[in-house]
Amino acid sequence: MAENVKTLHPSRTHFGVTAATRYATLIGDYGTSDFVLRRGGRLPEVTMAYESWGELSPNNDNAILIFTGLSASAHAASSVANPDPGWWEFMIGPGKAIDTDRFYVICVNALGGCFGSTGPSSINPATGKPYGGDFPELTIEDMAKAGHHLLHELGIDHLHAVIGPSMGGMVALAYALQYPDEFDYLISISAATRALPFTIAMRSLQREIIRCDPKWNEGYYDPDDEPQSGMLLARKLGLVSYRAAEEWHQRFDRARVKKERRKGEPFEIEFEVESYLDYNAHKFVGNFDANSYLYLSRAMDWFDVAEHGGSVNAGLARIHIKKALIIGVTTDILFPIEQQKEIAEGLIKAGRNVEFQSIDSINGHDAFLVDRDHFSPIITDFFAA
Amino acid sequence: MAENVKTLHPSRTHFGVTAATRYATLIGDYGTSDFVLRRGGRLPEVTMAYESWGELSPNNDNAILIFTGLSASAHAASSVANPDPGWWEFMIGPGKAIDTDRFYVICVNALGGCFGSTGPSSINPATGKPYGGDFPELTIEDMAKAGHHLLHELGIDHLHAVIGPSMGGMVALAYALQYPDEFDYLISISAATRALPFTIAMRSLQREIIRCDPKWNEGYYDPDDEPQSGMLLARKLGLVSYRAAEEWHQRFDRARVKKERRKGEPFEIEFEVESYLDYNAHKFVGNFDANSYLYLSRAMDWFDVAEHGGSVNAGLARIHIKKALIIGVTTDILFPIEQQKEIAEGLIKAGRNVEFQSIDSINGHDAFLVDRDHFSPIITDFFAA
Repeated sequence: MAENVKTLHPSRTHFGVTAATRYATLIGDYGTSDFVLRRGGRLPEVTMAYESWGELSPNNDNAILIFTGLSASAHAASSVANPDPGWWEFMIGPGKAIDTDRFYVICVNALGGCFGSTGPSSINPATGKPYGGDFPELTIEDMAKAGHHLLHELGIDHLHAVIGPSMGGMVALAYALQYPDEFDYLISISAATRALPFTIAMRSLQREIIRCDPKWNEGYYDPDDEPQSGMLLARKLGLVSYRAAEEWHQRFDRARVKKERRKGEPFEIEFEVESYLDYNAHKFVGNFDANSYLYLSRAMDWFDVAEHGGSVNAGLARIHIKKALIIGVTTDILFPIEQQKEIAEGLIKAGRNVEFQSIDSINGHDAFLVDRDHFSPIITDFFAA
Repeated sequence: MAENVKTLHPSRTHFGVTAATRYATLIGDYGTSDFVLRRGGRLPEVTMAYESWGELSPNNDNAILIFTGLSASAHAASSVANPDPGWWEFMIGPGKAIDTDRFYVICVNALGGCFGSTGPSSINPATGKPYGGDFPELTIEDMAKAGHHLLHELGIDHLHAVIGPSMGGMVALAYALQYPDEFDYLISISAATRALPFTIAMRSLQREIIRCDPKWNEGYYDPDDEPQSGMLLARKLGLVSYRAAEEWHQRFDRARVKKERRKGEPFEIEFEVESYLDYNAHKFVGNFDANSYLYLSRAMDWFDVAEHGGSVNAGLARIHIKKALIIGVTTDILFPIEQQKEIAEGLIKAGRNVEFQSIDSINGHDAFLVDRDHFSPIITDFFAA
């Protein structure tokens, strides 16, 4: 049971870990404590950070597992232990679309992340120092496996549903590929069966920007002197890809920042859209580990459902579920709507029961985080059916 | 006459200047040699680099002026003096869409550029050193004015047509706003009346990447030790915005670079799309001045037709031409097709004769450079009418 697992996490805790965060140390593979990764690397121990809401039913049949996007922590919703709003506050709670009066909801920080789960900023037991560039190559499948093993630790053999937006949607697909008989319902939001070149280019460029910051130092940076300049620029580029041009046109048009907020430096921030990017990127930098960013970002580029069966559709045909809800957003340039259709059509072709929702939101890839009016009813109805 | 103007250009010449490049020193404003810029700065002398093809008619009525995109030189087409293919080789020449048997075609390197025209890399006569960060604030309107003054030097009072793709299209619009009675036909390709926030964000981020390179040094860098790391990353981001996701999907999909081309470094290039960006960005870096990039890029963000009359449509109503050809590309994310429609509709609303062409090319913003099959017939027909 979740309440019994309170291993102290061995790594740094300054990234978004709160009183609501719980930890579980996973059991390793092959009778050792080693957690074996898809590309051959090993982690001598893996701790997973998670939060939960609601109560597990006596039959253990009401659990929902949520995988997050790249930058989110396990704090998806507020709780008594942490009353701060979570990243999906409008979605999760009593009487909400993901109803914690009905479901036992677990959100995990991804393996490789920096919000309590084992990642590059964790202490490597072999050296007593952060893994940094020694962290093994990480895949989406490894994140799914770590989430699965966490459930095992929590005594949950079967899930009601697995839900994932963005990177979390890829992890949810990987979960379905690896544990096809262990859950009933799949909700994939703005995900992809594999990254296409435009998206690879956007992410590769973010990684290269960080790597070009001399402070990155091949991944072996001082935790107190991180590559913040590179992280700031990379996050800005990420933000550009998360929103839709039309939203910014409506919000900012060509509005200028007030004169008193300008410093008179050459080429400084002048337009409100530049100020928006700067403000939001600064909020991120210092609260996210640069190596975690690199590892999670690359894992998304690597993920390819076709590796599970020879083709995307052969992979999707391996997914056995009662029903899937596939949601996409028409203005998403990073995980475009065509890629959501591909998931839905592949599952339908395999004979699965699929609900496909194309949301005409102006919020682009980030719509699931902000467009409550579009998202809440769809997920409410899915679980009500 | 063009042939009589051969002022030696005072600045560095290692950027793309060839035997075909000609120079003209412009006459200044207010009876001085000073060229006064729109935002108040002054240049004590301005030299414009250009190339030309064809012969000026005895009546001086067959001249066409071409303004370029950000990164192009005046070498738009090959010639006896420089047989290398130009950046618009398929478009300009005897019997081609812009027919040099019929027209006297002039292509100018933009004021502020680095291919022979006065720009930040030119020698500041006051100091004997490159302007660098001392180059005055530059606008699209200044580029139009410099092109106009060049024609005056060449003895051409009236143009048959002004043509501009991308940034050059903005300059062509600025030319039409400032010299409405001095030419007959306007061809604007993938341009904009003003930059919208997504485009500003993409360009601002490129500028910030360059500025974050310590070698930029506020613009006062050693010409032999330029901020190449920043330029490389900025150019990659530019390239991402110049092409369409679908083109890359078709060209690269998820193809990997061959193992023997990999170095085994962490996070190195793995996908062909990354290799494409790297190859093309390296071709650019070392052949373009970082400060020129910053000044031209910012000028595009600043340009706003609404400054010429109070609104975009009031500005467009000031443009007096016999006919305009407005071309856009459906997959262009940087200068989207809606912005081409806006130009066309504004001119139509003002009673102008307008041909609007929406090209369904997969080449995105760069289509005018590569999609001969779509572009050549449209421009051929326009000049044949």
